Amino acid sequence: MFDRVALIGLGLIGSSLARAMKRDGLAAEIVGAARSRETRETARSLGFIDRAEALPHEAARDADLVVLCTPVGALGAVMQAIGPELKPGAIVTDVGSVKAAVIEAVLPHMPDHAQFVPGHPIAGTEHSGPEAGFPELFENRWCILTPIAETDPGAVAKVRALWEAVGSNVEEMTPDHHDRVLAITSHLPHLIAYTIVGTASDLEEVTRSEVIKFSAAGFRDFTRLAASDPTMWRDVFLTNKDSTLELLGRFTEDLIALQRAIRWDDGEALHKHFSRTREIRRGIVEIGQDTDAPDFGRRTAEKSD
Amino acid sequence: MFDRVALIGLGLIGSSLARAMKRDGLAAEIVGAARSRETRETARSLGFIDRAEALPHEAARDADLVVLCTPVGALGAVMQAIGPELKPGAIVTDVGSVKAAVIEAVLPHMPDHAQFVPGHPIAGTEHSGPEAGFPELFENRWCILTPIAETDPGAVAKVRALWEAVGSNVEEMTPDHHDRVLAITSHLPHLIAYTIVGTASDLEEVTRSEVIKFSAAGFRDFTRLAASDPTMWRDVFLTNKDSTLELLGRFTEDLIALQRAIRWDDGEALHKHFSRTREIRRGIVEIGQDTDAPDFGRRTAEKSD
Repeated sequence: MFDRVALIGLGLIGSSLARAMKRDGLAAEIVGAARSRETRETARSLGFIDRAEALPHEAARDADLVVLCTPVGALGAVMQAIGPELKPGAIVTDVGSVKAAVIEAVLPHMPDHAQFVPGHPIAGTEHSGPEAGFPELFENRWCILTPIAETDPGAVAKVRALWEAVGSNVEEMTPDHHDRVLAITSHLPHLIAYTIVGTASDLEEVTRSEVIKFSAAGFRDFTRLAASDPTMWRDVFLTNKDSTLELLGRFTEDLIALQRAIRWDDGEALHKHFSRTREIRRGIVEIGQDTDAPDFGRRTAEKSD
Repeated sequence: MFDRVALIGLGLIGSSLARAMKRDGLAAEIVGAARSRETRETARSLGFIDRAEALPHEAARDADLVVLCTPVGALGAVMQAIGPELKPGAIVTDVGSVKAAVIEAVLPHMPDHAQFVPGHPIAGTEHSGPEAGFPELFENRWCILTPIAETDPGAVAKVRALWEAVGSNVEEMTPDHHDRVLAITSHLPHLIAYTIVGTASDLEEVTRSEVIKFSAAGFRDFTRLAASDPTMWRDVFLTNKDSTLELLGRFTEDLIALQRAIRWDDGEALHKHFSRTREIRRGIVEIGQDTDAPDFGRRTAEKSD
């Protein structure tokens, strides 16, 4: 599918994509760039890339496809470095969780003879780093592409074919709409999970070990999201600020309405609210985006004593 | 272990306990009470009880152990009905998610010749009803007992032995401390999950089908809790009001601090907060209360198209 692919960033997403491309023979050569020497050595020894470079522009040189897989806050600087090295006809795509701000950061550094196809695979786990990746990560997940006026349809088709080849369903939308959709399906949930886990660790009357011990009562479901990569998430909130703040306002309003119902013993309002939220879960299970097995089908955990 | 056990309420918890007791031969006879005829017929046909009664006091008559498994809002009325039927030496326990309010509702109706051992198995799934139960539900989960001054230690020991027999680890604490621990590990997480799923269904710009489609980006983790039984949860919030409201205040404060950091581009504050929440998850995984497998070890969902 491609002669040479350069992956800038070899964390969970970059290393999973490399593994999937290797498994399926989608590129003749895969070059990876990572700033940390440890990451490069891990990537080499795990064998999912053919060559490792410390500097993005060394990896991007002569590549047919460059996939930007660093936290979104670094993309402007990365693109500035690799822009002059891109060969004519090269395609650049990214995997950032935010699209409007990424386009704004990347576009000024794109040479006229290359194409930028902004993208976002909706896939991930709570683990990060090159060891965390696995080739099946993108299977039956959606990947959103947000092409802009400048993007050549041929380049979009090639990037779409890549994601479809690794098992994803591809959808196109505008960058702004993407950022609104992800604010509710991803960014707000992560912020709230980070918040409640923080609130729990600050309690004086309930110890941290009690929180951990009795977490199966509900709390633990939040800790998975709150164990996500801090740098990635800092960048997401700073770059999708408007949509996040707007949604936060709505969420807080709704929470305060329920708080008020609790304070004034309004059982009817509570019951009504709690009844209408089941339907969405049913929809998610129906289209295969979650499992109906009790407790997410978690394997029975080990005895703890 | 017991001659006759009466289970008042045959939902997820009651039916799971019945199944576990049947499997392990812990009671010579298990009698179940359920108001709905459908529930009684389901319970009979699934075979996890020996006899079904419509009225709680019919089931409680001559029982050695009565386990109250209805939503906590109903416990006062149930106890009022069964109190006069309890035989001398009978033990009554419950499985309610709130303890101080349950004790207040139950105690006035307890005859002097019977014993009340307030209890709470920290176990459950997002499903409810008699079909949802399974005998392994309590394995490697904690069960909290909150004995009061009036409780005979011999009765506590018997209830403890029952929960240990079905696989739980038993811990004792005061009712007030229980209510504070559960407010953070269970009640606040459920309230927040219900809120965000409600917020998502009210959006105008992002359709409900988009929310469902792209839920794997984080949102879906909240939908499991928000699919829990509305009546049970209404009662929990109305009966653990003080602890819930106190915690909600702290949560909102913390959320607004993060909101402010986003608004003012304070990346350092965000990164610092996001870094300290990983540790709690590690603790939960270490003591076997959750799985380290990516994505909770969810099986790969079915292809949706």
